[in-house]
Amino acid sequence: MGNGILYGVSVGPGDPELLTLKAARVLARCAVVAAPQTPAGGMLALDIARQAVDLSAKRILPLRFAMSRDAQTREAAHRAAIQALRAELDAGGDVALLNLGDVTVYSSFGRIQGDLVAAGYRVEMIPGVTSFCAAAARLGQPLTGGMKEPLCIVPGRAGSDLLRAPGAKAFLKSGRDLPRLLEDLAQAGLLGRSALVARCGLPGEEVYPDLSLAQPQGDPDYFTTVLVKGEEE
Amino acid sequence: MGNGILYGVSVGPGDPELLTLKAARVLARCAVVAAPQTPAGGMLALDIARQAVDLSAKRILPLRFAMSRDAQTREAAHRAAIQALRAELDAGGDVALLNLGDVTVYSSFGRIQGDLVAAGYRVEMIPGVTSFCAAAARLGQPLTGGMKEPLCIVPGRAGSDLLRAPGAKAFLKSGRDLPRLLEDLAQAGLLGRSALVARCGLPGEEVYPDLSLAQPQGDPDYFTTVLVKGEEE
Repeated sequence: MGNGILYGVSVGPGDPELLTLKAARVLARCAVVAAPQTPAGGMLALDIARQAVDLSAKRILPLRFAMSRDAQTREAAHRAAIQALRAELDAGGDVALLNLGDVTVYSSFGRIQGDLVAAGYRVEMIPGVTSFCAAAARLGQPLTGGMKEPLCIVPGRAGSDLLRAPGAKAFLKSGRDLPRLLEDLAQAGLLGRSALVARCGLPGEEVYPDLSLAQPQGDPDYFTTVLVKGEEE
Repeated sequence: MGNGILYGVSVGPGDPELLTLKAARVLARCAVVAAPQTPAGGMLALDIARQAVDLSAKRILPLRFAMSRDAQTREAAHRAAIQALRAELDAGGDVALLNLGDVTVYSSFGRIQGDLVAAGYRVEMIPGVTSFCAAAARLGQPLTGGMKEPLCIVPGRAGSDLLRAPGAKAFLKSGRDLPRLLEDLAQAGLLGRSALVARCGLPGEEVYPDLSLAQPQGDPDYFTTVLVKGEEE
């Protein structure tokens, strides 16, 4: 018996119905389901997946990676995750590792995959719905304007100097940096071209179609997406 | 009885299993399925959807929009599509309009939606898997590097001057403009950081993980995605 396959399974940003048919099929046939777990014990990707697929007979493998700001803690958690996954794969079982949103976009799966592939394991990525596509659909507006204009996806830790670049923009996970981004949007005169969705498809979802009219109050949620229209709309 | 709802249903870039559970459910309950049709009669989005969902009992509404280079022809086709959709919705039936890839990203659905919403109709977008996420998953590589680096999605008719912008890039539908893009990548010394997937998940799929080693020969396909890694990988 050879080694098992690790599947990086995208579960989308929140609505369990945004899992793909492929994600549901792969989950149904893996005996082991691995998923990120916060220090407080939360397992959001697992919560989403189990609303879409019956996981009651699965063995759940909680992994604590990539949540700490401390590099040493992150490194130790990464090594522990690799070790736990290798143990399962070495025993010949396939493992589904759940990922919020899409597994190819700002996902912690990339490094895990790199290490396992380098060690000779088979890894397969199952793409899914990104938070920015889901947010645009929730707002009922296209992400992009015309076919001449780029769409720039800006992760949390990138600055907002990209605001003045051409085209449409999606700022991801901007909860922590939201006050600064809102200020920059106001200064650039772009609030009227900007919308915000927090916790898209999750309990407590908030939708602001026009940030010049209304903005979220209080502590911004970690899962916040700000969409800024381009010029070619 | 009120008017029907128009659903913009994303079918993903090719693999029928990349439809979401939501797309499958909405398709199953709409009696009318509208889909783009080329002048030669091809209906690719429909071909993909019917491999995932039984559409044999549906009424199919072929729409010929957005395929012509001539503005007047496009405009007439757009008006005819709106008229055909309004007739269905006025009769009280819900309509699923199929879209390749994701309906919020460089989709012709945006304008149809705008016109119908302005005329008082209810429209809902069902997000899906984009071609660039599917291409990255097919290559088994993340689209993005670190969390400080943007990801720029560049449509066919945008130039390749964005090659020198920071971050990772995905060039979409670059078939027609592929020779020029490959030249520009070579001049920028980026071929070794670039990969290409043509017809991802469709018959005739081609995968080039490293464009400095091998490149597609002959006429490039319309459905071509070129992925360029960022610096933070």
